[in-house]
Amino acid sequence: MKLGVCWYPEQWPQSIWASDVRRMVELGLTFVRIGEFAWSRLEPEPGQFDWGWMDRVLDLCASAGLNVVMGTPTATPPKWLVDAHPGILARGRNGQVRHFGSRRHYCFSSDTYLGQACRITEAVARRYGRHGAITTWQTDNEYGCHDTVVSTSDAARAGFRIWLAARFGSIEALNTAWGLSFWAQEYRHWDEIDPPYGTVTESHPAHRLDWQRYSSDMVARFNQAQVDILREHAPGCDILHNYMGLFTEFDHHKVGEPMDIAAWDSYPIGFLGQGPFSPEEKRRYLRLGHPDLAAFHHDLYRGVGRGRWWVIEQQPGPVNWAAWNPAPAAGAVRLWSLEAFAHGAERLSYFRWRQAPTGQEAMHAGLLRPDDQPAPGFAEAATVIGELGALGPPPETERAPTALIFDYDSIWGLQAQPQGRDYDGLAQAMRWYGAARQLGLDVDIVPPGADLAGYKLVLMPASLFVDDGLAARLAASGAHILAGPRTGAKTQAFAIPADLPPGALQSLIAIKVARVESLSPGIVLPAGNLGSVIGWMEDIDTSASTEVLDSLYDGRPLWIAQSRCHYLAGVPDVALLGHVIADIAARAGLATENLPAHVRTRRRGGLRFVFNYGDTDVTIDRPLRLGVSPIPPGGVAAFDDLGDQPWPH
Amino acid sequence: MKLGVCWYPEQWPQSIWASDVRRMVELGLTFVRIGEFAWSRLEPEPGQFDWGWMDRVLDLCASAGLNVVMGTPTATPPKWLVDAHPGILARGRNGQVRHFGSRRHYCFSSDTYLGQACRITEAVARRYGRHGAITTWQTDNEYGCHDTVVSTSDAARAGFRIWLAARFGSIEALNTAWGLSFWAQEYRHWDEIDPPYGTVTESHPAHRLDWQRYSSDMVARFNQAQVDILREHAPGCDILHNYMGLFTEFDHHKVGEPMDIAAWDSYPIGFLGQGPFSPEEKRRYLRLGHPDLAAFHHDLYRGVGRGRWWVIEQQPGPVNWAAWNPAPAAGAVRLWSLEAFAHGAERLSYFRWRQAPTGQEAMHAGLLRPDDQPAPGFAEAATVIGELGALGPPPETERAPTALIFDYDSIWGLQAQPQGRDYDGLAQAMRWYGAARQLGLDVDIVPPGADLAGYKLVLMPASLFVDDGLAARLAASGAHILAGPRTGAKTQAFAIPADLPPGALQSLIAIKVARVESLSPGIVLPAGNLGSVIGWMEDIDTSASTEVLDSLYDGRPLWIAQSRCHYLAGVPDVALLGHVIADIAARAGLATENLPAHVRTRRRGGLRFVFNYGDTDVTIDRPLRLGVSPIPPGGVAAFDDLGDQPWPH
Amino acid sequence: MKLGVCWYPEQWPQSIWASDVRRMVELGLTFVRIGEFAWSRLEPEPGQFDWGWMDRVLDLCASAGLNVVMGTPTATPPKWLVDAHPGILARGRNGQVRHFGSRRHYCFSSDTYLGQACRITEAVARRYGRHGAITTWQTDNEYGCHDTVVSTSDAARAGFRIWLAARFGSIEALNTAWGLSFWAQEYRHWDEIDPPYGTVTESHPAHRLDWQRYSSDMVARFNQAQVDILREHAPGCDILHNYMGLFTEFDHHKVGEPMDIAAWDSYPIGFLGQGPFSPEEKRRYLRLGHPDLAAFHHDLYRGVGRGRWWVIEQQPGPVNWAAWNPAPAAGAVRLWSLEAFAHGAERLSYFRWRQAPTGQEAMHAGLLRPDDQPAPGFAEAATVIGELGALGPPPETERAPTALIFDYDSIWGLQAQPQGRDYDGLAQAMRWYGAARQLGLDVDIVPPGADLAGYKLVLMPASLFVDDGLAARLAASGAHILAGPRTGAKTQAFAIPADLPPGALQSLIAIKVARVESLSPGIVLPAGNLGSVIGWMEDIDTSASTEVLDSLYDGRPLWIAQSRCHYLAGVPDVALLGHVIADIAARAGLATENLPAHVRTRRRGGLRFVFNYGDTDVTIDRPLRLGVSPIPPGGVAAFDDLGDQPWPH
Repeated sequence: MKLGVCWYPEQWPQSIWASDVRRMVELGLTFVRIGEFAWSRLEPEPGQFDWGWMDRVLDLCASAGLNVVMGTPTATPPKWLVDAHPGILARGRNGQVRHFGSRRHYCFSSDTYLGQACRITEAVARRYGRHGAITTWQTDNEYGCHDTVVSTSDAARAGFRIWLAARFGSIEALNTAWGLSFWAQEYRHWDEIDPPYGTVTESHPAHRLDWQRYSSDMVARFNQAQVDILREHAPGCDILHNYMGLFTEFDHHKVGEPMDIAAWDSYPIGFLGQGPFSPEEKRRYLRLGHPDLAAFHHDLYRGVGRGRWWVIEQQPGPVNWAAWNPAPAAGAVRLWSLEAFAHGAERLSYFRWRQAPTGQEAMHAGLLRPDDQPAPGFAEAATVIGELGALGPPPETERAPTALIFDYDSIWGLQAQPQGRDYDGLAQAMRWYGAARQLGLDVDIVPPGADLAGYKLVLMPASLFVDDGLAARLAASGAHILAGPRTGAKTQAFAIPADLPPGALQSLIAIKVARVESLSPGIVLPAGNLGSVIGWMEDIDTSASTEVLDSLYDGRPLWIAQSRCHYLAGVPDVALLGHVIADIAARAGLATENLPAHVRTRRRGGLRFVFNYGDTDVTIDRPLRLGVSPIPPGGVAAFDDLGDQPWPH
Repeated sequence: MKLGVCWYPEQWPQSIWASDVRRMVELGLTFVRIGEFAWSRLEPEPGQFDWGWMDRVLDLCASAGLNVVMGTPTATPPKWLVDAHPGILARGRNGQVRHFGSRRHYCFSSDTYLGQACRITEAVARRYGRHGAITTWQTDNEYGCHDTVVSTSDAARAGFRIWLAARFGSIEALNTAWGLSFWAQEYRHWDEIDPPYGTVTESHPAHRLDWQRYSSDMVARFNQAQVDILREHAPGCDILHNYMGLFTEFDHHKVGEPMDIAAWDSYPIGFLGQGPFSPEEKRRYLRLGHPDLAAFHHDLYRGVGRGRWWVIEQQPGPVNWAAWNPAPAAGAVRLWSLEAFAHGAERLSYFRWRQAPTGQEAMHAGLLRPDDQPAPGFAEAATVIGELGALGPPPETERAPTALIFDYDSIWGLQAQPQGRDYDGLAQAMRWYGAARQLGLDVDIVPPGADLAGYKLVLMPASLFVDDGLAARLAASGAHILAGPRTGAKTQAFAIPADLPPGALQSLIAIKVARVESLSPGIVLPAGNLGSVIGWMEDIDTSASTEVLDSLYDGRPLWIAQSRCHYLAGVPDVALLGHVIADIAARAGLATENLPAHVRTRRRGGLRFVFNYGDTDVTIDRPLRLGVSPIPPGGVAAFDDLGDQPWPH
Repeated sequence: MKLGVCWYPEQWPQSIWASDVRRMVELGLTFVRIGEFAWSRLEPEPGQFDWGWMDRVLDLCASAGLNVVMGTPTATPPKWLVDAHPGILARGRNGQVRHFGSRRHYCFSSDTYLGQACRITEAVARRYGRHGAITTWQTDNEYGCHDTVVSTSDAARAGFRIWLAARFGSIEALNTAWGLSFWAQEYRHWDEIDPPYGTVTESHPAHRLDWQRYSSDMVARFNQAQVDILREHAPGCDILHNYMGLFTEFDHHKVGEPMDIAAWDSYPIGFLGQGPFSPEEKRRYLRLGHPDLAAFHHDLYRGVGRGRWWVIEQQPGPVNWAAWNPAPAAGAVRLWSLEAFAHGAERLSYFRWRQAPTGQEAMHAGLLRPDDQPAPGFAEAATVIGELGALGPPPETERAPTALIFDYDSIWGLQAQPQGRDYDGLAQAMRWYGAARQLGLDVDIVPPGADLAGYKLVLMPASLFVDDGLAARLAASGAHILAGPRTGAKTQAFAIPADLPPGALQSLIAIKVARVESLSPGIVLPAGNLGSVIGWMEDIDTSASTEVLDSLYDGRPLWIAQSRCHYLAGVPDVALLGHVIADIAARAGLATENLPAHVRTRRRGGLRFVFNYGDTDVTIDRPLRLGVSPIPPGGVAAFDDLGDQPWPH
């Protein structure tokens, strides 16, 4: 795994650039990411480009042997561009203009902005597409950050109508598909359809869902346009985008399709406060982040990148953008870096080289302090470089035996009609993932269209949509399957299936969901001694071919199975979920362990890594390839994975 | 009591209509409510009516002997109407347009919309006003739902000025009445007056109160226009509107005046989360609803309907529109239905016949599931039909010995100047009502203008306005009276009475409110061993003719009496309130009981019904006319009321 | 100390004015404040003035020997003025117009309104500037109340650009100072710069800070214009403005510069709910207010007034504008009045004479009830007048030995980039102030530009900005200094100092802040047995010349000293803060005490006052000059201060 750093030479005097590059190389970094916010410096006046400074930066890198990842600067159109074309600004859900003065102030649906973004992308790509220092390009920066996928601009409104026309063919088809005889919502023309906001009470859920699908498609369109230009002018280069954590507003599988690599920006502490964790977890993991948070995204984006993925921004110290910003524990930066390696990252770069003295991110740590002295993350990066060097060539990342199906479309569907205010498809997916990992399982996170052949266990925590193709692939895979509540609960058109949920999954398990209920926090439905159901419960009509493996205290079937397919009728708490997954894993021939509390592991090739997120030592009774035993709090170790299990069942 | 169902044939293929009607009749239903959202199907293009489908529906009903309640479709103007007359859209308090895409997107003040609503009402009424299947008409649907009483449109602004001019006669009179020399708020012309929103700090309370009065009057105007048309074209038919629960934004007594029946939509579980109940109560009554919630509205709307009232929408299973939507307990639908009967309902219809697979209410249960199979509510409806049949002809509903005065205007006054953020006139009324019922008392909920003669006990929990007429009727009634704090605290013009509160009530009890204080939740003022005061306390100047029956720990008089009139100077907690009402009831010659916890009763004619909202059995040592003893949780029983008391004092 | 009252004759019939004035004089009041909301009565039609009524009011006062404080009526422009010049209305942060209908509905940046305000001020001043009854003028009323310092009107936008041009000279200088190469935020022209609102994510912190500085300067400009007119037409009169509590939106030191007196409006109970106090404190001090709340503002505004200050509005009973409005304890009005005297107030006036029956403040107590009878505050005012008379001529107010530096600009800086969501410079200042007073210390609250010579102890809880001048004055003062975290953390241009924080303070203590972290509520970092750090902690690079006096549990230096300069690297809890201040006070030769719980004291000349905010008696073993011992809850006493200490260390 190569290590690098995000660098903003345009924010510093040219006089220190050479020193910066030298110190990067001395540290052992092999690449830099640059350029992604530099539009106002590359084109300070309309049509007047200033390439000189960037030429010098690239030449410095080339001379020093630093590889460059070049970003297109389209996340921050300069003020002169905004003033010339005010229509490119996005509009929020209530119609308010989202003004210049920070970043991401453009509307994905704006053809004008798309044209301008292509113009600057082409200019940069023509100039540097064949520059020897550059092997990789990044499109834009963090699509959707600050809630920018959705815009209600005139362009978006017009684009949505065209998108709908293409999707439905006729207005009658749309009226029927959405069921608009309800509340006299029928349309006569495409031009009658508006964005689904500002209505008196909730707008139509299918309207909202299709609006999200459209908005996601606009991100894909915008990205594709840049990819096309880069393919032409930067032949042979890899292309990537830097995705975010805890973010599902566009379909990453679809946006990522034309790109070579999926990169993401990993801020384990910054994300902690926003994540679906309990107050107790947020206190406990204050300085390391939640043990499944980075890992989940590593495995998610490995799937998005079809195996090729990076961490392109790695938190190196306290950040500035969370509600509160604690300092990482000593060793945390090393732990996070090695965890990325364990999950198969090709590269990792720290954000950022030197802390800036001004601006919105002035309080964001870098590898260097604002006074140019090393910050604590600097030494940890050096340690990582040394340890990876000592490990030798990285082992292959293999397919895991367990797959978790992650479907952006289903998450939007659950948002469009949650039925219980806090129902959260992403949170469900993360809990299932964490439960599997607590059992020592490695997990691939895959799209609903993935080939499932070869998996022994498939987890479906939040697949609202199950089509016949998915049902067939599930059946053909031979895997044991665990489907959560609400699986197959809607058709693609957002109707309850005519044969009731779980829809197409009924070909694998002959049940019907007769009734559902959502439950507010604090309402707990006991399920024998295995655990409890919280938040959601379904009344299931079982059949002769199904077996009830567990029931609720009131007799309602909870865990139903037919052959290799299992269905959970309620949202399980941690205890129940762990029990059920362990049981099905055993049926599938997968050995599980009870990892010590706050410990997680990951295998890469023949190595097994152990991460200690707890506050006590963890002893490993194996010869170690990396780290020491006992592993201190915040520590990492690795040993040769002989397939046996250091921890008891 | 006739049972029926709300039916939306326009949302289903015509091929199943006949089957639907047949199954309704087989179940024992005798009427359907239809049509109230069907505008886009009745008039799919401007001026082009499609009556055929509705003709067929009505003929089907007529053939099957199903009685029809026909709704005017004015709650959902179609998109083409909105696009032709965008000015009909309501505007929210901050001026934002409330767009098409759900329902109730019209402004009551819009003369344009009033005209359009009359046009479609007349069209439907001309076509079907004399159709044999229809005996009852419903105007519009749930006036005010989704906070739609208030609109700040240009039409509303103009209408308010006219309304004020009519009310005050001269701008000088308004300046004086409102006291506008304060903060230099004086007006010179009517056209200077705007809606009371968007001001720098709170707008003038009298301005807000009169704005609410105006807005309520606009609802009455809108309804009256439909009533006039229906009276002409549907002679002999009853007219009703379906009111809501926990809703006080318009004066239901005034709106209901020209109509024959008051109907309401009862969703005991859906309302629970919004009601003024403690978290503990919300947990305890999760699957039945609060024991006083439906009953309060039954008694309230019996008053609004001057004795004639229905439940026109009865929750039949989980709904979709609460924050969380639990399933009702087994038996809950039966309990709710029989409770409506006990309180004197003429009819009850379930909402809705079959659960829809799409739309905003796709997750709302019906008597049938989306796959056409019976949902659990179906069987409970059948049970109710059987039990009511067995009971024989319904006994008369008699006047209760206790009246509770409920005054929409006073509730608005308390909202216009709460003085303590959470002061809530509706909640106070519901607590007093609940305390009386816990003592086994039946309660009539009456308007402030009601004839009070014949009542033994009159409760006034939240009558901010007491005029001389009310004081005289109270005195003449001979009833014992309990008035809560803030009684008579304002004149109709929203001034503190010149002789201080309780204003005109001083003719019955010679006290003055010298000072008031509001207290945040958690502040508790003990009142001896009877209970405590919470939220509000007044310093009372008593007089020689008054007696202090209880005082606060600090010596302030709390419970003051003069002859039959009692005044509470603070908001009582449950214990104190129960004690005081029991004591005064005894003085009034009314026997009270201490009902078992979570049990409520209601007499109808010679029958007394018992409702078990608890989770343990309740034994009735009487011969039963309905139900079994012990009454299980969620159960109902009825016995002949011999005037004695099954439960000890 | 003279006592007076705020009087609104325009709200009452002329027939009772003479009686009002007579009763004021009988009570012992010597002045009234009038006129500050009377524009609509002074100029009922554009350009048509009605002076007659005010002439009569002033003549009545003059005859009775009542001194008058005359307010300019500019806080409430009448509706006709707003309609003639709609552009004078302020706009909120999201651009919404802030409408007529309450008060303070004008934009400080509006030249049109400035002109109108000058016109009415000049008219009033010409008419009454030399009236014998008037010795003092008040400009406007409560600048900034209801969040009115900031406006985003077109006038404000334009004014800001001019202000920036004057501040930076060139757009390049601004780009560099703010660091706008970050996120391509660079400007080419002043006209490209907008208010810092409505951006996609947070706007640039230096942009927000300079916007606040600009907005504050507009308040100063507005006030200066009135002062200039009053100086011309009311020669010899004192000029003041009535400031508010818990309010830092403009620089009071700067606004107060051209005026003679700083007055403030003291509502101890009204403010309690908004103050930075725990729920436990809010319960405990429900009826007296927090013991440091009024005192802090007394000392703050004594500094703003360069020694001359008043309480011009004193809470006399329950108010109307807090979320909940409890009644003061018996004796509270006396306690508050005497506390103002102890801190050196020249005058105090109660708000208001008689409670109004209508309007936004109808529920606000006065000295009289709405029915003209005395309210409880009336008798307490009489007691105060008697006690002050008995005390004889007021002793001089001396400079305190302890100074606390209070810097509005630093508070804005902390708001512009809090880094931890709840970091609050005002709250920090109040906590430090309270800790010092709990030790029996009197405190002067001084601006950062104050002459510090003569102080023994200087507290700097929240001085984000430390320039060389301040550092030099600190060094020259000879005082012992305690600086809190974040001291000197930014340059005036809002950059991290090149030599890191604490910036210029490094000339006194050779440390560098290497890293900072913010911590959410509930995270507590123990610091040995002295207490804990909460909310904020810094990693300090110490040096050979510094000494570490206390460290965190994890070894990080917490309390660092070099000679007389001490630095706290974390936000201390109450215990830690008290310990540290006591220790440094002892080093500075200041004796401290451990005052009994809930007791505070203040010296004025040779007298020491004791205030009992607790609920138990406090015994004073000294001959008393005022009050009794034991001092009951809510009581006050005073004795001759002999420099010894009634309470043990």
